[in-house]
Amino acid sequence: MLENNSVGIVVAQCAHFDTPLTLKSGAVLPAFDLTYETYGTLNHDKSNAVLICHALSGTHHVAGKYSENDKYPGWWDNLVGPNKPLDTNKFFVIGVNNLGGCHGSTGSVSVNPVTGKPWGSTFPIVTVEDWVNSQARLLDFLGIPTLAAVIGGSLGGMQALQWTLAFPNRVRHALVIASAPNLTAQNMAFNEVARQAIITDPEFHGGDYYAHNTVPRRGLRIARMLGHITYLSDDAMGAKFGRKLKSNIQYSFDAEFEMESYLRYQGDKFAGEFDANTYLRMTRALDYYDPALPFNGDLSAALKQAKAQFLVVSFTSDWRFSPARSREIVKALLDNELTVSYAEVTAAHGHDAFLMPDAHYHNILRTYLSNIEIGGNDAK
Amino acid sequence: MLENNSVGIVVAQCAHFDTPLTLKSGAVLPAFDLTYETYGTLNHDKSNAVLICHALSGTHHVAGKYSENDKYPGWWDNLVGPNKPLDTNKFFVIGVNNLGGCHGSTGSVSVNPVTGKPWGSTFPIVTVEDWVNSQARLLDFLGIPTLAAVIGGSLGGMQALQWTLAFPNRVRHALVIASAPNLTAQNMAFNEVARQAIITDPEFHGGDYYAHNTVPRRGLRIARMLGHITYLSDDAMGAKFGRKLKSNIQYSFDAEFEMESYLRYQGDKFAGEFDANTYLRMTRALDYYDPALPFNGDLSAALKQAKAQFLVVSFTSDWRFSPARSREIVKALLDNELTVSYAEVTAAHGHDAFLMPDAHYHNILRTYLSNIEIGGNDAK
Repeated sequence: MLENNSVGIVVAQCAHFDTPLTLKSGAVLPAFDLTYETYGTLNHDKSNAVLICHALSGTHHVAGKYSENDKYPGWWDNLVGPNKPLDTNKFFVIGVNNLGGCHGSTGSVSVNPVTGKPWGSTFPIVTVEDWVNSQARLLDFLGIPTLAAVIGGSLGGMQALQWTLAFPNRVRHALVIASAPNLTAQNMAFNEVARQAIITDPEFHGGDYYAHNTVPRRGLRIARMLGHITYLSDDAMGAKFGRKLKSNIQYSFDAEFEMESYLRYQGDKFAGEFDANTYLRMTRALDYYDPALPFNGDLSAALKQAKAQFLVVSFTSDWRFSPARSREIVKALLDNELTVSYAEVTAAHGHDAFLMPDAHYHNILRTYLSNIEIGGNDAK
Repeated sequence: MLENNSVGIVVAQCAHFDTPLTLKSGAVLPAFDLTYETYGTLNHDKSNAVLICHALSGTHHVAGKYSENDKYPGWWDNLVGPNKPLDTNKFFVIGVNNLGGCHGSTGSVSVNPVTGKPWGSTFPIVTVEDWVNSQARLLDFLGIPTLAAVIGGSLGGMQALQWTLAFPNRVRHALVIASAPNLTAQNMAFNEVARQAIITDPEFHGGDYYAHNTVPRRGLRIARMLGHITYLSDDAMGAKFGRKLKSNIQYSFDAEFEMESYLRYQGDKFAGEFDANTYLRMTRALDYYDPALPFNGDLSAALKQAKAQFLVVSFTSDWRFSPARSREIVKALLDNELTVSYAEVTAAHGHDAFLMPDAHYHNILRTYLSNIEIGGNDAK
């Protein structure tokens, strides 16, 4: 069943790019595909496009369902649809699977046409900057000169920020949610543990597990279990599970506490679905992103080329991308006399809050997005 | 070289117990050894004994060195020694390796006399309550009726608390540092991820890796890397490593950031030294400890039998055993009209702060311990 305000049944599309893409690392991708979805209608003067950038394990499938019987809608369906905060009656919304991803865009699981085998370990390490460059190619492909807005949470927020730096004339508004101008050492440390769990899994085979007909499931499972802890606040885990036992204490290493069952379930599910090489690359992109690095850590100097207007949102219980990190972005934008709205939302859910349909949060987005002017009046 | 105020060269000792010990799980250990060390001299009326309880990976080797050339002293050497905060001129100090440990006391690595093979997976799961019971046996063995004090940090603090509940007449003071009346769901979740990393390591062999002449090194390494993140505060990691690169970005999964090298080093070191089965059991003991459980979560009711005087210490940046958790203990003790001193120490080091020689913290311990009255004047 589809809700009334769903974007409805959607179809993923694929754009092929033949012009080589030089990555930040210096590696060159001779050609690549990007898988994407769109919702709403591009207006006459092409001024109503909004790009949604996904986080670590996201995809292009942001909203709607693939069939009436599809169990779950896209990952940000609560945000995107007719009369939803990101209103598809007004905006033409684009979701895209990042380059290096495992949901259709070219990545480690894709076949390298030169070898006829999966790229595997040879797929280059892509960065936030590379993603934004490839997304600009997608806009060219779609004939969109300028984005009304780019929006993303977490790693997606880094891409939104990077859009304003790489293409200051192609983006009018950036919504940077639950994000940071770079990762803290602690955040990078969690990524490192997750990667080491994957890389040291004997089934990883140096990243070429496809050839061995296996996947480093154990490592990916540990990585995801760890991730889940950091997406929730301590309080949220306490409220959701507390110390609830499934039955009496068994003096075993089985899942005796409900929280243990939850983590194992999430880990198993993810390990069966997600590509390990992609996980490694997504976390590395997070580690590397640091626009202030070439400016000796001066974020204000780094953001000097930005021209967009900004909405920055953080959540009080988010300990992985804390409000303090968002305020760093806000300060640097204000130093450059840019127009910035900042909301620090009181929310219990930790980092995951950016995905939740919290009324206060959604109203902030709704209000901000409704005030964005679009040119043509022919956006249905 | 030994410092002036070192306890000097020390020798570990072993006490053997032949009377069966019934564990909380119902399992019975027919006999067991406890490895321990002592510093200072037991006074005539045996009123100056202080027991130190160790945390997750601690040992009986609290202070001093095993030889002049020993590279490192015991793990709490900055606290214990002549004229140190826990002054061995006044006190007779006992360090003991917990039952189930891997440093001499009977545990998974020990040979089960019935089978002639290491206990391995068959060694029972021990609890904080079991440790305290076994430690009481050690006091009997040493001819000590009553402890002047019991002291511990983290999991050691739980043992100190448990001493006052299990043997209210055998302990006069309890120093409960950086601890909690039970673990939060988040804390248990970190333990679960660590255990799953170990248990799913193909070299674990269901806990009987000794028979396969191997150890689950990869899992233990991941567990320790993860642990290290949680022992430090985000700020401490930032101050210690920040985003410092070892050289330029290499676009690889090598240890490019200094923090990555540190974590890998710590993980490798630990995996080469510590026993995986012991790690599993120590974390499970942490999970299970919850004196309020039989009292429907009413900690005040749970602590009713305590008679000791208390010093409770927490550290502002400790996010794994936060000050709020220490305050729960303080409140429950006050509800029972017990004498409690509480110090919330401003410290940057996170949970690890309890092991650091912070002057303010050490002065608190020094003052508290110096006020403990001991009977005989023959403690040198």
